[in-house]
Amino acid sequence: MFGPFLKSAVRIGLQGVQVSESVKIFEVGLRDGLQHEPRRLSLADKIKFAERLVAAGVRELELGAFVRRDQVPQMADSDRFFSAIQAGRLELRSARAWCLVPNRIGLERALRVGARNFALFTAATDTFAEKNLGMSIRKSLQEFRLVLVRAKEELGSNFKVRGYVSTAFGCPFEGKVAAKKALRVVRAMAELPVDQISIGDTIGVADPRSVVELLEPVLRDYGPDKIAVHFHDTRGTALANSLRAIDLGVRVIDSSVGGLGGCPFAPGASGNLATEDLIYMLNGMGLKTGIDLDALSDLSILLAKKLKRPMTSRYAQAYMHAKTG
Amino acid sequence: MFGPFLKSAVRIGLQGVQVSESVKIFEVGLRDGLQHEPRRLSLADKIKFAERLVAAGVRELELGAFVRRDQVPQMADSDRFFSAIQAGRLELRSARAWCLVPNRIGLERALRVGARNFALFTAATDTFAEKNLGMSIRKSLQEFRLVLVRAKEELGSNFKVRGYVSTAFGCPFEGKVAAKKALRVVRAMAELPVDQISIGDTIGVADPRSVVELLEPVLRDYGPDKIAVHFHDTRGTALANSLRAIDLGVRVIDSSVGGLGGCPFAPGASGNLATEDLIYMLNGMGLKTGIDLDALSDLSILLAKKLKRPMTSRYAQAYMHAKTG
Repeated sequence: MFGPFLKSAVRIGLQGVQVSESVKIFEVGLRDGLQHEPRRLSLADKIKFAERLVAAGVRELELGAFVRRDQVPQMADSDRFFSAIQAGRLELRSARAWCLVPNRIGLERALRVGARNFALFTAATDTFAEKNLGMSIRKSLQEFRLVLVRAKEELGSNFKVRGYVSTAFGCPFEGKVAAKKALRVVRAMAELPVDQISIGDTIGVADPRSVVELLEPVLRDYGPDKIAVHFHDTRGTALANSLRAIDLGVRVIDSSVGGLGGCPFAPGASGNLATEDLIYMLNGMGLKTGIDLDALSDLSILLAKKLKRPMTSRYAQAYMHAKTG
Repeated sequence: MFGPFLKSAVRIGLQGVQVSESVKIFEVGLRDGLQHEPRRLSLADKIKFAERLVAAGVRELELGAFVRRDQVPQMADSDRFFSAIQAGRLELRSARAWCLVPNRIGLERALRVGARNFALFTAATDTFAEKNLGMSIRKSLQEFRLVLVRAKEELGSNFKVRGYVSTAFGCPFEGKVAAKKALRVVRAMAELPVDQISIGDTIGVADPRSVVELLEPVLRDYGPDKIAVHFHDTRGTALANSLRAIDLGVRVIDSSVGGLGGCPFAPGASGNLATEDLIYMLNGMGLKTGIDLDALSDLSILLAKKLKRPMTSRYAQAYMHAKTG
C-alpha cells in the first residue's frame, strides 16, 4: 500500500522535531553572486552590505577574489575591500571574511591586505579548470599545495582554507560528470591540508539522486564537518538538492542573498541558491542558522534597488510584496 | 561522525536507481495558473495549449472552472471550452480534461457541456472556505455530497472526482494550519466517494517538515494511490516539498507549465510549482512521467510570448536561454 520510502523518510523528515540542530550558511553573494551581475556595486556599497549581512547573523562571508582584474572586473576592488577590513573600517564582529585565491600570485595580494581565510578552487573537469585557472586539475592541485606552503610560512596556523570542487555534477564544456570522476577530485583535494571542501554544482544540473551518488561516499570518507555544498538554481533544483544533502548529514550550505548572480536579462545564467529561501525552509524544519530572515530580506530589497532588478529569491519577492502591498 | 539521517536517507535517494517508477503529473496551468494571470488567453489559444500539453505527454489536465463568471473572468469561457471538447474539436487522445466544480449549480453547467472529471474543493480553514465558496467547511462537504449524488444520477459510474483540500498548511486569513486540523478535513473529504484527494499548499508556506507531519498520517490511512499534492512556490520551497512527498510515497503531483500563476508584476502571488522544474528533477531521479521536457519547455516559451512576461520556471528560463543564446 505504501511507497517503499515511507518508514525511513518519515524518520528523516521528523528528525528535526526531536533534535535541535543547526546549519551553517556560507554566504557567497558578494563574491560568486556579484561576479555574475552586469551591474557593479561600489566598494562603499559592498562594505555596507557586508556589515548588514553580519548584523543579520551571517558568520561566514565570501567578499572578494584575488583573480585577474581584467578578467573579473567586479572583483577588481578586492584589495581595497580587504584593506578596509584590515584597517578595521568594517564591523565584522566574529564573522569570517573569505577571499578566492586562484594561485600564488593571488595569495601574495591577499596576504598584503591581511586576508586570513582563503578559498581555493579547482574543478571536476579539466576543460573547466583550464578555462578558469589556466591549469589542468592536477596542475591546480599542485599549485594549491604551494599556495598552502606559502600561507603557512607567512601565517603559521593562523589561517583557514576551503577548497571548491566546481562542476562536480556537470560541466558547460564536458557535460554530465559521473560521481566517480568528481569523487576522485574531492579525494585529491582532501589530501591537501584544507579545513573544508565545498562541492559545487556550478551550472545547476544536479538532482537529488546525483547528490546522493556523490555525497554518500564523500560523507562516508570525510564526515559532514569537512563538507559543504554549493548549488546553483539554474534549473530550479537547488533547494531540493540542499534538502537531500541535509538528509545525508551535510550541515554547511553555500548560498547567496537574494539569489544574487541570477539575472533576468540573461536568465540562463541563473544564480546561486537564494539564502532567504534556504533559511525559510530550514526554519520550518527546526534547523537553526542564527540568521534573522527579515533583516536578510530587507537587505534583498535594497540590493534589488541598487542592481535595478528584482532578486530571484522567491521568498524575498513574497516578503517584498507583503511589505509594500 | 555522520549525521543521524545518513543510512536511511541514502536508501531513499538511491531507491530510484534500482526501482523503475513513475510519477503522474496533474497539470493545472490552464486553470489554477491562468486564473491568477492578469492577462487572458483566448479560447482558441487555450485549446491550442491544451492540445500541445497532451502532445507533450500530459495525461491529466485541469482546463476550466464552473464558478461565477463575474468573480473569475479568466474562466468565463469554460462552458465553451468543454463544449469544444465535447464536440471533438480538441485532440485530447486518452488525456482526461478536468474542471473545477464548486457546487450543484456549477455541476449542472459542467454536465450540460459533457464534462466527466470533476474537481471539488474545500479548505482546511473556515475563513478561506467562506471567502472562496461562501460556505463553511462542513457546509461545503455537505454540498459536495449532493453534487456527487447528482453526478451519479446523471452519469452512473462514468465519471471521476478529485477533492482539493486548500490551505492545508497555511491560510491567508488564519495563518499557520496545524497538521491535526488539516487532517480532520482530509478525513472528512475521504468519507465522500472521491477518487483522489489533492492536498494543497495554496499560499506556499509548507516546508519539508510540515509536509511529513500532514502526509505521513494521510498516507498511512489512505495510501499513495488516493493522494496528490499541490504546492505553490511562493517562498521557493515547492520542489523541495515535492521531493519530500515523493520520499513518503506520493506519486501524483499537481504542477503548472512554466510556473503559470506567478506574476513578476505582483511577485507575492507567485505561482504553482513549475511542471518543467519538477520533471527535470524526476528525470534525474529516474522517475518517469511520460512527458517530453523539451516539448513542454517550447510551450513555455510560447506562453511567455502570449502573456508578455517571462515564465517563472527556472528550467524553462535556462532552456530558453540555451536555445536563443
